[in-house]
Amino acid sequence: MNKVSVCFSPALYPFYAQKDEIVIIIDIFRATTSICAAFNNGARSVRTVATTEEAIRLKSKGYPVAAERNTKRCEFADFGNSPFDFTPEKVNNRDLIFTTTNGTQAVEAALDAGEILIGSFSNIGALLKYCLNAQKDVLLLCSGWKNRFCIEDTLFAGRFADELIRNGRFESDNDAVKAARDLWKVAKSDLVSYICDTEHYQRLKKNGLENEIEYCLAENTTSVVPIYDKTIKAFINQRK
Amino acid sequence: MNKVSVCFSPALYPFYAQKDEIVIIIDIFRATTSICAAFNNGARSVRTVATTEEAIRLKSKGYPVAAERNTKRCEFADFGNSPFDFTPEKVNNRDLIFTTTNGTQAVEAALDAGEILIGSFSNIGALLKYCLNAQKDVLLLCSGWKNRFCIEDTLFAGRFADELIRNGRFESDNDAVKAARDLWKVAKSDLVSYICDTEHYQRLKKNGLENEIEYCLAENTTSVVPIYDKTIKAFINQRK
Repeated sequence: MNKVSVCFSPALYPFYAQKDEIVIIIDIFRATTSICAAFNNGARSVRTVATTEEAIRLKSKGYPVAAERNTKRCEFADFGNSPFDFTPEKVNNRDLIFTTTNGTQAVEAALDAGEILIGSFSNIGALLKYCLNAQKDVLLLCSGWKNRFCIEDTLFAGRFADELIRNGRFESDNDAVKAARDLWKVAKSDLVSYICDTEHYQRLKKNGLENEIEYCLAENTTSVVPIYDKTIKAFINQRK
Repeated sequence: MNKVSVCFSPALYPFYAQKDEIVIIIDIFRATTSICAAFNNGARSVRTVATTEEAIRLKSKGYPVAAERNTKRCEFADFGNSPFDFTPEKVNNRDLIFTTTNGTQAVEAALDAGEILIGSFSNIGALLKYCLNAQKDVLLLCSGWKNRFCIEDTLFAGRFADELIRNGRFESDNDAVKAARDLWKVAKSDLVSYICDTEHYQRLKKNGLENEIEYCLAENTTSVVPIYDKTIKAFINQRK
């Protein structure tokens, strides 16, 4: 029996981290959804960096760069953080650089983990299959908003943990799993309505980005499994 | 209109703290419940300290000391962390020292706050009245377990935020408030059953302390409002 846990903020990761576990990075609105979209459209690798300075340096070396701060695309960047930005013409066979307000910070926090995967509703089925076969403990790391708790990442974590536990090969003694599963049960019948009064939905709406919400909540639009490759220090698609 | 927010861990406090707000420290099992019990039975002040070394030093100066680590009473201490330890004979008119695994660490984290209060189900009515009159923003700071999220503190936070908002003088745009209120709604019809499979309940049960759970979940057994006095660096009872 393997364990599944949930951590609600990158700042809390040190209090949850265990050896040899799989850490799944979750930033539903929108970094991890966008990274999955990029791989789905043929990106060869995605390297996440913590600072815009590092992103600018890599852009000057010729890499295509996605950069977002506070929901807005950074001026110097080729892409913002919208999953619709990463079209096949722009990303196929390319090595992308990614820096965002929350998601890439969560990756930084978890760099010492056994395995790091990228999770979103868009690749949930492929990811579940991967975890059920891996025979390792799983920690679902919510990116949140500037280290604060957020609902949408929690709902994904609850949905995912629920599937793992109901499958019978995972168990949990983690209070955050219990909370996330119960919130998922409350929200699942009408996810969009539930999310309407959350902090990040309001932030996206203010910037005219509500049309991306539906895509970010849709399940199984891709079967990619982005996994961190320690040799090249970037994510690659484990499932081609 | 004032704001109410919830923070799920002392380690996240810096990402939530606002100027001039009331911070309510919550450690339902059992530090904040026990501090309320001590005041209810006549304690003059409660000074929380972060380390057992500091507690031992103050004991040598003659102060009665409550000290707990990992649910167990420290050998050197006069009291553990059970609300039943603080009988009138032992605490009336005395200045107590308190150090616990989680609750006193949360106080340390919030020392720069405008006002710091101690919250538990036992003094919830008095505390609500205080906050509704104060015309200040309120941050509910859950102590958790070693900086990890915990259910019982979250349920209290949800219950408390729900009352403040339904009263009409408070609002919230904080995702943690939404989550805590919804978990409270799920749990409230049978709180003890809901809490049975949480981390801390299991920990207390292992140490034969289940009989304290019921007391820790009972509302309005006291009307004390412990407030931090910056001059004497200790909590006193605001409502005699």
